[in-house]
Amino acid sequence: MNPFLNNCPLPGRQTDIITLEHGSGGLMMHRLVKNLVFEMLQDVMTGNGHDGAMLQVEGNIAFSTDSFVVKPLFFPGGNIGELAVNGTVNDVAMCGAVPQYLSLSFILEEGFLLEQFKQVLLGVRNACLKAGVQVVTGDTKVVEHGKGDELYINTSGIGKIHPKAAIGSARVKPGNVLLLSGQLATHGTAVMCLREGLAFETTIQSDTAALNPLTTLLLDRLGSDIRFLRDPTRGGLATTLNELVAECGWGIEIEQAALPVHAQVEAACELLGLDPLYVANEGVFLAVVSPHVAAIALQLMQNHPLGKYAAIIGRISDEAEPLVLLRSKIGGTRVVHMLTGSQLPRIC
Amino acid sequence: MNPFLNNCPLPGRQTDIITLEHGSGGLMMHRLVKNLVFEMLQDVMTGNGHDGAMLQVEGNIAFSTDSFVVKPLFFPGGNIGELAVNGTVNDVAMCGAVPQYLSLSFILEEGFLLEQFKQVLLGVRNACLKAGVQVVTGDTKVVEHGKGDELYINTSGIGKIHPKAAIGSARVKPGNVLLLSGQLATHGTAVMCLREGLAFETTIQSDTAALNPLTTLLLDRLGSDIRFLRDPTRGGLATTLNELVAECGWGIEIEQAALPVHAQVEAACELLGLDPLYVANEGVFLAVVSPHVAAIALQLMQNHPLGKYAAIIGRISDEAEPLVLLRSKIGGTRVVHMLTGSQLPRIC
Repeated sequence: MNPFLNNCPLPGRQTDIITLEHGSGGLMMHRLVKNLVFEMLQDVMTGNGHDGAMLQVEGNIAFSTDSFVVKPLFFPGGNIGELAVNGTVNDVAMCGAVPQYLSLSFILEEGFLLEQFKQVLLGVRNACLKAGVQVVTGDTKVVEHGKGDELYINTSGIGKIHPKAAIGSARVKPGNVLLLSGQLATHGTAVMCLREGLAFETTIQSDTAALNPLTTLLLDRLGSDIRFLRDPTRGGLATTLNELVAECGWGIEIEQAALPVHAQVEAACELLGLDPLYVANEGVFLAVVSPHVAAIALQLMQNHPLGKYAAIIGRISDEAEPLVLLRSKIGGTRVVHMLTGSQLPRIC
Repeated sequence: MNPFLNNCPLPGRQTDIITLEHGSGGLMMHRLVKNLVFEMLQDVMTGNGHDGAMLQVEGNIAFSTDSFVVKPLFFPGGNIGELAVNGTVNDVAMCGAVPQYLSLSFILEEGFLLEQFKQVLLGVRNACLKAGVQVVTGDTKVVEHGKGDELYINTSGIGKIHPKAAIGSARVKPGNVLLLSGQLATHGTAVMCLREGLAFETTIQSDTAALNPLTTLLLDRLGSDIRFLRDPTRGGLATTLNELVAECGWGIEIEQAALPVHAQVEAACELLGLDPLYVANEGVFLAVVSPHVAAIALQLMQNHPLGKYAAIIGRISDEAEPLVLLRSKIGGTRVVHMLTGSQLPRIC
């Protein structure tokens, strides 16, 4: 018997699924939130469990939000709970901030299994512990069966901007060096293999991770020489690079041979007809740094568990033409465009 | 021809609905966000449109989140866009804070009409202007047809705690006076009349509104004599009062005759079998104040457009038994419990 469910449903009701009553704002919702959510998250929660949290902050903060609709909820290497924490933590970290506080909002579908919800909450808890963030406010809604897909999660996050950080696309200049902190396309390929029934033929696991320990280390050591940070999630690295050229006004040149991709991921992408440049990542970030710190940045990354596959992948060109150019392994050059169409729906 | 849609879809595609490509992270999403969302919200947005916003704050802040799944999206007196802004603004205001920044995250269902999305964005814009808040970060996801219900919105909000505020259930003491800022049950009844096909027989409109102008006025004038603020949304006033007695440890006595309810709302509730005490409100708040400022607080409310129907509805009793007691119009007394069951699914 699941100890969290003892007091949860009304007597005589089916005990193991989400019902519309859990979203009513009344007694059933209070019990669900107190007996399951608060209980599971007690060591990563602060605050009084009200509609709003009161927090002390100083100076500049970063603020970010993401809704997570990944399908399926559970995939090799993680679940939607971990993804929802890590995704927002990373968006905050990419502003040059140290993530501190999260909100957590659920849209549950009627009929969703409480046991699965519990597993997701475990994922939330573990990810919060690793990222060093606290859940401070939340919300729970329930929609009718057929009006959702088991569970959608929104997280919003607040973090304190690192005192040495000066992150921004306007600071990206010709000659700056591009580093990628890890192997490309791992998360998206893991989810797609599962969806396409290839999961048993590969050992590819999502790389979902909170990246703030590594970004904080880089900022501690290299401060304003870290000019730009961004995690290439939906749309993949190709889309992130295109966003950057559009923002900074300078071109980018990358070397195909330098792009770190795991052999299994490369093989799976070939089988699935995916280009790793366009596949979503969840545990990798792009850093643009001053040229004189590039080697140190690479070493700092490679010596850290989150960056052991880090690589220098290219540079900002002195062409004021905002194009992303890829030099292929055989020496040709092609333009890399932003993702068009929908390669991978509901990947995060 | 809708000017916002000119550059939105790929050439030759159907132009007027959301497709999965709009959630891909690629070109279609960028166009949707830039040409529609940013365009519609330009006068209520700050920041660079990235995944994260960098903000300057000082001192104590309030932080809150809510996901909105109201059905239908459009109802007399507003739409889900206004509700999503006002709901989070109010949660922040109830912490004794002045709402400043919002995040805005959409879960769109494939097939949702862009024209309707535009109407919702207009609602967001108008509500932000009235509340004096800025949208600073956001997210857009698309799910397959049948895996959502047109549109769900999450907003999270940040506000600066008012320098004179000292809000908290621990500050609620026997003898404190309860004020309600407006008429009960209006939002929930408006939505239910629409759902039940009664909308043409009544003129009931949702009272959805940003309440921060009035809470700020009260804090400016009465400071720490405002001891507790809460907006009774899902679960209605009955649930909010039960939450308060559980938190503060003292009982509450309210007078049925003092509860402000519009005659049409009362009649509709009777027809629909609803108890106004349990019906969701969106433009009303409960304030618990020191007894010596109760009359001034009431006057401040009644002189303000957001509080013209305000009333003193009861007091904190000196019984350390945490029950909500209602003295009926004919003199009897009954215990008011928290909402059980699901009176009104998807009301906000």
